[in-house]
Amino acid sequence: MSMNRKIILDSRPQGMPEPRNFAFQEEPATAPAAGEVLVKTLYVSVDPYMRGRMNAGKSYAKPYEVGGVMGGGAVGQVVESAADSFSKGDIVSGGWGWQTLAVVGAASLRPIDRELAPISTALGVLGMTGLTAYFGLLAIGDPQPGETVVVSGAGGAVGMIVAQLAKIKGARVVGISGSELKNSYLKQELGVDAVVNYKTDELEEALEAACPDGVDVYFDNVGGEISDAVLRRINKNARIPICGQISLYNLKQSDQGPRVQSILLTNTALMKGFLVGDYAKDSPQALKELAGWLQEGKLKHAENIIEGFERIPEAFLGLFSGDNLGKQLVKVAEVE
Amino acid sequence: MSMNRKIILDSRPQGMPEPRNFAFQEEPATAPAAGEVLVKTLYVSVDPYMRGRMNAGKSYAKPYEVGGVMGGGAVGQVVESAADSFSKGDIVSGGWGWQTLAVVGAASLRPIDRELAPISTALGVLGMTGLTAYFGLLAIGDPQPGETVVVSGAGGAVGMIVAQLAKIKGARVVGISGSELKNSYLKQELGVDAVVNYKTDELEEALEAACPDGVDVYFDNVGGEISDAVLRRINKNARIPICGQISLYNLKQSDQGPRVQSILLTNTALMKGFLVGDYAKDSPQALKELAGWLQEGKLKHAENIIEGFERIPEAFLGLFSGDNLGKQLVKVAEVE
Repeated sequence: MSMNRKIILDSRPQGMPEPRNFAFQEEPATAPAAGEVLVKTLYVSVDPYMRGRMNAGKSYAKPYEVGGVMGGGAVGQVVESAADSFSKGDIVSGGWGWQTLAVVGAASLRPIDRELAPISTALGVLGMTGLTAYFGLLAIGDPQPGETVVVSGAGGAVGMIVAQLAKIKGARVVGISGSELKNSYLKQELGVDAVVNYKTDELEEALEAACPDGVDVYFDNVGGEISDAVLRRINKNARIPICGQISLYNLKQSDQGPRVQSILLTNTALMKGFLVGDYAKDSPQALKELAGWLQEGKLKHAENIIEGFERIPEAFLGLFSGDNLGKQLVKVAEVE
Repeated sequence: MSMNRKIILDSRPQGMPEPRNFAFQEEPATAPAAGEVLVKTLYVSVDPYMRGRMNAGKSYAKPYEVGGVMGGGAVGQVVESAADSFSKGDIVSGGWGWQTLAVVGAASLRPIDRELAPISTALGVLGMTGLTAYFGLLAIGDPQPGETVVVSGAGGAVGMIVAQLAKIKGARVVGISGSELKNSYLKQELGVDAVVNYKTDELEEALEAACPDGVDVYFDNVGGEISDAVLRRINKNARIPICGQISLYNLKQSDQGPRVQSILLTNTALMKGFLVGDYAKDSPQALKELAGWLQEGKLKHAENIIEGFERIPEAFLGLFSGDNLGKQLVKVAEVE
């Protein structure tokens, strides 16, 4: 019997997570019961939202249990199937998380077409990341040709797709990140119109220069003072999808700043938090559209792939140092 | 020739406005040109939004000019008409503001049916106040039967109508005000389910008791710490129309507090600033519906009427002391 290696939440972090919050365990893999498959993990996704689930408190997803496997998106290959819908060798995507072998209900798996695009994209542009960008930007932000769209965390997985979708819709796009590498990529590879480096630029001046006509859509991945500065520049009827607040996830104190209500009132603007799961019924159509743009070359997928199961915690912690360009993945095994 | 008495903005207030910010002037009334009418003012509306227009900075409406008449809603009677659409004696509503006689373009006037309801309601429940409550609550808040709707500034002009509309829609309604008089009226006359007095109750405890199932719609007239406390209790998919921020209008420093983005994200909630003018095309239908509820007795209009043109500034300043129950009007003359 094969052994399943898994990474569990060993303790809840206070502030920034550390390697000691995780523990590695091994156990024999079990056989799939009727309607289940045994999957071997090929790629694991690490995402900022996981930080929220490491806390005990109320968040938009159920907290991870201490002692339980770190859940999250993964791509794998079916090793053994006891379900009609999958055969040995099939590539699938699901939420079984940080483990090398998993028994999963077939109904919770999505089949991945390996002819369509590299299978890792099922965790990125053709997965939750792409859908998050798609629905946040298009269903809430609804950018119109010529409008100014500002994206914070623009060099991250979601941000890069948002920037490109906004360009596809004919908007003028301004990307904010904390790295020259990311900003060069955004401008030179993705055609973003202007970039701001929140670490090295004088933020207010740089935004003023980058947004001479104000801001019509602000896609917010980061929160905090960067958002304060963008919100001071919104136009009448601006739309502000709240996707993430990565600048806050490791804060120990409560998040204080200028209240936003007066700005929303003065500009009759809309701010909305969202989760990709709210749009589940429209996801198949959205994935088709994203795949079309990918195949036409209008949408590029930037991936940052680290190899090795044991490096998953390191890849996850790297999300908070601001160094990851695009979607952060960990490659665990090769397709057979 | 009759004399027009008018009240002008004499200086911009710093913080709370004072009587010295206004000045009284007299001038001969002019005759209406073709397409205009000369109107004698019967009632003048005083509203919190006027405080914003007294500032020089960007707001949702153009600032008043120093030396110009204080604009705003009024009801009057046509004294002389040079327009086909109105005759001498007609009752009309318009935005000519704080003056006893005004020459107004006929196209900007709304005819008032004095059989339908008392003519003062054209400035309240059947005017901008009613429409503000209607669109903010119904178009943005969209309360469903059994949901909990919290209204701040519930004893004010807009708040009282919001509370009643939410009851009409089958919601459980919680009103927040700073006065026992207002809260008694809300409970006993308007059927509000629970009330909170932000001046005398322990706010967190009182809200917790008043909202055992959380908050689905928060209609915000006040902002500040009252809103912070309500927002801590919102439910998944909550809707938050931002109608006013009266607690801030006289603040000299910037408005700091807990940032709301994480709460909106965690609850996939929507917050939207709005102005009644954004819904102009739907207003005739909304007024019909409001008039229907008024005639059926489902909607009561509470008015607080002060008599005398010279008391308009006093009536306006009273809005910020929290003493006004319902719509604050000043009666300037009798119908002839």
